[in-house]
Amino acid sequence: MAWDFETDPQYQEQLDWAAEFVSSEVEPLDQIWPHEQFVPLDGARRKAVDPLKDEVRKRGLWATHLGPGLGGQGHGQLKLALLNEILGRSSWAPIVFGCQAPDTGNAEIIAHFGTEAQKQRYLRPLLAGEIFSSYSMTEPHAGADPTMFETRAVRDGDDWIINGWKYFSSNAATASFLIVMAVTDPEVSAYQGMSMFLVPTDTPGIEIVRNVGLYGEPMNGGSHALIRYNAVRVPAEALLGGEGQAFAIAQTRLGGGRIHHAMRTIGLAQKALDMMCERALSRVTAGSKLSDKQFVQGYIADSYAQLTQFRLLVLYTAWEIDKYQDYRKVRKDIAAVKVVMPTVLHDIAWRAMQVHGALGVTNEMPFLTMIHGAGVMGLADGPTEVHKMTVARQVLRGHAPSDDVWPTRWIPKLETAAREKYARFLEHEVGIQ
Amino acid sequence: MAWDFETDPQYQEQLDWAAEFVSSEVEPLDQIWPHEQFVPLDGARRKAVDPLKDEVRKRGLWATHLGPGLGGQGHGQLKLALLNEILGRSSWAPIVFGCQAPDTGNAEIIAHFGTEAQKQRYLRPLLAGEIFSSYSMTEPHAGADPTMFETRAVRDGDDWIINGWKYFSSNAATASFLIVMAVTDPEVSAYQGMSMFLVPTDTPGIEIVRNVGLYGEPMNGGSHALIRYNAVRVPAEALLGGEGQAFAIAQTRLGGGRIHHAMRTIGLAQKALDMMCERALSRVTAGSKLSDKQFVQGYIADSYAQLTQFRLLVLYTAWEIDKYQDYRKVRKDIAAVKVVMPTVLHDIAWRAMQVHGALGVTNEMPFLTMIHGAGVMGLADGPTEVHKMTVARQVLRGHAPSDDVWPTRWIPKLETAAREKYARFLEHEVGIQ
Amino acid sequence: MAWDFETDPQYQEQLDWAAEFVSSEVEPLDQIWPHEQFVPLDGARRKAVDPLKDEVRKRGLWATHLGPGLGGQGHGQLKLALLNEILGRSSWAPIVFGCQAPDTGNAEIIAHFGTEAQKQRYLRPLLAGEIFSSYSMTEPHAGADPTMFETRAVRDGDDWIINGWKYFSSNAATASFLIVMAVTDPEVSAYQGMSMFLVPTDTPGIEIVRNVGLYGEPMNGGSHALIRYNAVRVPAEALLGGEGQAFAIAQTRLGGGRIHHAMRTIGLAQKALDMMCERALSRVTAGSKLSDKQFVQGYIADSYAQLTQFRLLVLYTAWEIDKYQDYRKVRKDIAAVKVVMPTVLHDIAWRAMQVHGALGVTNEMPFLTMIHGAGVMGLADGPTEVHKMTVARQVLRGHAPSDDVWPTRWIPKLETAAREKYARFLEHEVGIQ
Amino acid sequence: MAWDFETDPQYQEQLDWAAEFVSSEVEPLDQIWPHEQFVPLDGARRKAVDPLKDEVRKRGLWATHLGPGLGGQGHGQLKLALLNEILGRSSWAPIVFGCQAPDTGNAEIIAHFGTEAQKQRYLRPLLAGEIFSSYSMTEPHAGADPTMFETRAVRDGDDWIINGWKYFSSNAATASFLIVMAVTDPEVSAYQGMSMFLVPTDTPGIEIVRNVGLYGEPMNGGSHALIRYNAVRVPAEALLGGEGQAFAIAQTRLGGGRIHHAMRTIGLAQKALDMMCERALSRVTAGSKLSDKQFVQGYIADSYAQLTQFRLLVLYTAWEIDKYQDYRKVRKDIAAVKVVMPTVLHDIAWRAMQVHGALGVTNEMPFLTMIHGAGVMGLADGPTEVHKMTVARQVLRGHAPSDDVWPTRWIPKLETAAREKYARFLEHEVGIQ
Repeated sequence: MAWDFETDPQYQEQLDWAAEFVSSEVEPLDQIWPHEQFVPLDGARRKAVDPLKDEVRKRGLWATHLGPGLGGQGHGQLKLALLNEILGRSSWAPIVFGCQAPDTGNAEIIAHFGTEAQKQRYLRPLLAGEIFSSYSMTEPHAGADPTMFETRAVRDGDDWIINGWKYFSSNAATASFLIVMAVTDPEVSAYQGMSMFLVPTDTPGIEIVRNVGLYGEPMNGGSHALIRYNAVRVPAEALLGGEGQAFAIAQTRLGGGRIHHAMRTIGLAQKALDMMCERALSRVTAGSKLSDKQFVQGYIADSYAQLTQFRLLVLYTAWEIDKYQDYRKVRKDIAAVKVVMPTVLHDIAWRAMQVHGALGVTNEMPFLTMIHGAGVMGLADGPTEVHKMTVARQVLRGHAPSDDVWPTRWIPKLETAAREKYARFLEHEVGIQ
Repeated sequence: MAWDFETDPQYQEQLDWAAEFVSSEVEPLDQIWPHEQFVPLDGARRKAVDPLKDEVRKRGLWATHLGPGLGGQGHGQLKLALLNEILGRSSWAPIVFGCQAPDTGNAEIIAHFGTEAQKQRYLRPLLAGEIFSSYSMTEPHAGADPTMFETRAVRDGDDWIINGWKYFSSNAATASFLIVMAVTDPEVSAYQGMSMFLVPTDTPGIEIVRNVGLYGEPMNGGSHALIRYNAVRVPAEALLGGEGQAFAIAQTRLGGGRIHHAMRTIGLAQKALDMMCERALSRVTAGSKLSDKQFVQGYIADSYAQLTQFRLLVLYTAWEIDKYQDYRKVRKDIAAVKVVMPTVLHDIAWRAMQVHGALGVTNEMPFLTMIHGAGVMGLADGPTEVHKMTVARQVLRGHAPSDDVWPTRWIPKLETAAREKYARFLEHEVGIQ
Repeated sequence: MAWDFETDPQYQEQLDWAAEFVSSEVEPLDQIWPHEQFVPLDGARRKAVDPLKDEVRKRGLWATHLGPGLGGQGHGQLKLALLNEILGRSSWAPIVFGCQAPDTGNAEIIAHFGTEAQKQRYLRPLLAGEIFSSYSMTEPHAGADPTMFETRAVRDGDDWIINGWKYFSSNAATASFLIVMAVTDPEVSAYQGMSMFLVPTDTPGIEIVRNVGLYGEPMNGGSHALIRYNAVRVPAEALLGGEGQAFAIAQTRLGGGRIHHAMRTIGLAQKALDMMCERALSRVTAGSKLSDKQFVQGYIADSYAQLTQFRLLVLYTAWEIDKYQDYRKVRKDIAAVKVVMPTVLHDIAWRAMQVHGALGVTNEMPFLTMIHGAGVMGLADGPTEVHKMTVARQVLRGHAPSDDVWPTRWIPKLETAAREKYARFLEHEVGIQ
Repeated sequence: MAWDFETDPQYQEQLDWAAEFVSSEVEPLDQIWPHEQFVPLDGARRKAVDPLKDEVRKRGLWATHLGPGLGGQGHGQLKLALLNEILGRSSWAPIVFGCQAPDTGNAEIIAHFGTEAQKQRYLRPLLAGEIFSSYSMTEPHAGADPTMFETRAVRDGDDWIINGWKYFSSNAATASFLIVMAVTDPEVSAYQGMSMFLVPTDTPGIEIVRNVGLYGEPMNGGSHALIRYNAVRVPAEALLGGEGQAFAIAQTRLGGGRIHHAMRTIGLAQKALDMMCERALSRVTAGSKLSDKQFVQGYIADSYAQLTQFRLLVLYTAWEIDKYQDYRKVRKDIAAVKVVMPTVLHDIAWRAMQVHGALGVTNEMPFLTMIHGAGVMGLADGPTEVHKMTVARQVLRGHAPSDDVWPTRWIPKLETAAREKYARFLEHEVGIQ
């Protein structure tokens, strides 16, 4: 009921358990099966991962962001933020805790907008972590600007026929189904004329033209698909929500996801800072430890200040989401989080890399992966530039133009007004003189 | 008892009153009597200011940071931070609310270390806002590094004789007394060998050589004195605290003050951001409002993000001070606040200036004053560089060196450990193949 | 005829003389008569300054940028840049060397566009340094965007009647004449419909409403005038150039001036760097010289790198102006110089201030003046933001869009083309295997 | 003989040819055989590359930095800089033009310090591009700080026995010989006690423990070796230069190499800027081209300004090397180049990546490779932090401390001196009044 910056002791105990668990049980998976989080479990991976998920469920930390009806705890965003700080240190951890993007966002919209049958078919196994999903929205020439989308879905009897290109459909190669955004009514604006479809990946006509990789992955061996939809036929029941609702659904989805990445970024950046500190204390050059050199001290201080401030901003925003339950009231801070996020991760990881010397730029340390991740985060849910515009517009809503050619706080004007306001004392003073 | 980012409603009402009161009653004083806050009240200023102080006392907002024994409310730092955000918009407001630096810090040490007689003579009128004080520590050749101080106090019977130079003794010209730090035992280290003295400014031998002005003030007409102490004789009762205690006293004093400036900086920077927004909405160039241009939107977004994060850091640090009541536990974050503070004010004020075009660089807008203030804040309680070293050292205390030539998180090492840990699954897998 | 970064020995001798002369004879004027450079010489100032000008004339360094017909040496911009680096260290030096802005620009346009009578009346004494001029273009609501100017000149018989407001008319209070830009044909675009007038400052109807000061100057005691033109009547001969030519004339004027400020900024920033180095070598804290601390070494290294690069950019641009004699070919680099200039001066002066500790923020050191000057330079001939747009547009002229949805250098495309190009070797290789 | 920023027409013709040749013939190799530049040519690569080298030789552009005695043109560094700008656009181009690092540096020291037999055996085929070399200096715990090196070479009869670890020995896996730096006299300082040896890579006892990869390369499949020297026996003739001369030789080597990287960085950064411009002109979002948006214009303008300034700094430094032929006189600017280089490449590549949206972070565009390269360049020949210290120390050599507690340019002191200097005029003036 008044300012408090502390976690309640019971939940803190849960977090402490999670921190220990992730460090000892989950992080090793990152070394053994990197880049395989979104491949459905089988063989050794299933044997290793299933028991870990069970432990998480037993502790009551599985998919905590979801309501109890969906198998979660209804913990809300603030508690998720505190948990995600820990999960962010490992790329397998979100999988093990049932809260990996993009499936979280995808599950969210099926839960909100799906029919019972859709939930049965897609949501249940998705929540159970048994299958994966892909969100197929972005188009090659249009980026994430929906007004330029060209993929079309046309009715044919009871079915829809989908034609077009989609780009950067993450995990399409291993997903069981795609959520496809397509123009169903080209006569109206994109905000009214697009619809969402749930499309199994084995539907005829779906062609993964390229599996685009991020830097460092093999050519055509990555997880972001360029997809050609060649007259893909789906039944009426494939429609998610009403016809023309795609834009409204997409907005819902983006809200949550943005801040989940940010929560995990805290953990990742903290890991980089920890490594920077260890190295600074370990390495001696020119007669003294790196930690005794001002340049390195500056790196540590700047990193700590950036990270501590960013963490507070993320937690504050999560608290606002929980409190207002209204995306429009938190839009400004969600966008601010997105603006700051890439820079925090980039800067701290870059400094950590620098402190590690030549070792820092090798593939034997994770710094370039983090820096690369910072780049991805500056583009993934819309580029930083767009988020800056959002912040500015929201901030400006609280202001009005001056009613004068001079600003309201132009000093000559303020001074005149002040002298008028206190004229009674000033005149009197003159009288005395 | 768990994360909360809200002010309790009763106190929020107080703050709302303060915001309105400062805006309508106090800010006009800044226009009429700039730079005269530290001149003891008389004439028109007394007539104008005394009733305002009375209103503040009536609302229970006078010197709230002090305990009830000292005439305050014992509100602690978090509530003071919320109030100071408001007071920071006006240079007279801290005077009207009884919490102006450096008197707050000076009062604090007399309250803690003073004798009853000292409190009677100096503390009471100081708390009442009737007199002002000056802290005479820095020396010309030494800055704020106490190990280099040379001003000496030598016993002569029951008296002490003080000789030496002090620099940047703020408000000395209008203060009733000086708190002078002098070497009393040159045989031991500066941390044990210096003492503090309470010295009335009219004591013979005190010579203000220059009243150093900040940029923009008339030469030799400023408020930071270069003082020559010429055999200044004070009685034994002038000693504050025990002999040799000066360094310990000084540490106490610096703790609080650092964050008070930061609290007010939030208000000042918010004012600059408000002005930036008004101007952006008011000014049209090349066919559109400034607020529609991305460069300006970028300024607003970056400013909002910086300020919101800094505000949370300051409030968090204030909360820690209240919670731990132990300077050593908050030292890291106090220093982090000091590191960030000048940059936040500088950047936002500079952008606001830029958005105002040529008008922004004139003396008819306050931006350069703010930028200058940012420079002062990067030096006043020790330079930013020293605070960075403090942050780094405190952060590093939580870390240990690697026990190996390679870092703990060197990937080849992690991978080997991971494969060993999960060997049972991996072997089995090979068995299947 | 090939890359050379050296000054020819004769001119270097001239520069060495100028450096010594400015340091010993001219810089003292900055201390005695600050802010009085644009007050016509009389009394002691005339006695002190006239002999200095004579020495400059004797050395052949008076107004060297002008052609011999105008009393100069026709040295061109590169040589002027080398000289201005030296003059930039003193605010009186440009006056003493006959090349002070804004008179240089004003003289230039009268020389190009003026009638013989206009040259006789205004140009001759201006070039002699006997009178000063003011360029009255900017309007309060419009900044420097000519499409928004509202000041009108209307024909009345043989005369013109001027009505309107002008802002930031520098030196109007001490100038003998104003160059006023006014709309003469509101039916056509601003680029065709405005004209320039030469108007003596004592013409009835000219009202200096405020002498706007920069930060640090007394209110209404500055040198940038807000002027009301109240039915100011001037004869037909007051027109400079043809009717409707104002925009074309203004463009000419802005070209040169922009880079002259930059040349002098090199000298000013070098001065700040020199002071930073001296202080770093002089001051000891925490047991070592500032110059031995990495933070300070970083300041010096970054400052040197910034300044050296900026200096080369300015000299390169000056060389281009001399070579091409065509503003359009150098526009990109002139704008780039303007973009970089404020940052260089700001950063170096800020660091120098920081290295000086508390002394650095006082009015007893020049750092805030320099920082303020950096702010002015980011706005004076158009804001930095506009210059950035100019640079970008000029750079983009050398590029074309891709003829494909993918970039020309999209790796899959490049790889396919490469394999085709060298197919003969690749096939052969396969054949061997 | 005086400032000139132009290339002489004949050499410009050569450069134009090289630009065309690299673009059409050499860049395709980067696509077909990435990362294989340092594998001795055979099969298809020999068939493709040998004719290209021949063309370069025919044009007189082979190894132009070398003197005619070594098969080059003795062109010096400035001309090499102009050529390297072009070669920097392709990773195969330096190979094709006979000037690839680290072989250039290695060849240089064998040419200067090698015996005739050593030149015959190593230098000749190295210059012909038939074999490659590796410089084995850095040690795992010591980075590039020679005072901490532990690898020992001990005499055993006429032979030397080498024992120890080396790290980051680039291209060791494909090199024909290693240049190994080892302690031969542990009793004296590292600057006198280390020697260099030329060691064939097939010498028994040389064990490549790991082929460390940069980020993006396969684990243990990179080109930077961690090497264990296990009692590696070499004959007396393996010694390069005199015993104890290693440090002096290393200094020579580092001089040139540093700036060669910088020259090529210009070309690489220019390529990124070109791609940024193309994309900005090609992509439409929210109703307009990216090139019409201020954020993107800002990226282009800042990139152009950074790159143009950096290029001039590199050319200036190259000119200084040619002029002074004395490393000590150019040390400051070589270090400044190194300080600036990583930032220029990083910033431009990062902006180019951002302008490309999601495509920018994939492995189908080269931006992350460039960013990674910027990281490498901030560490490769010593970390940026060390180069900053070098710049600062060199700059400080031109300055002296103040002889006073106040700076030389403390305004009160300057003013007093100025008033004394011009007292005759000032007194007279008072007389008049």
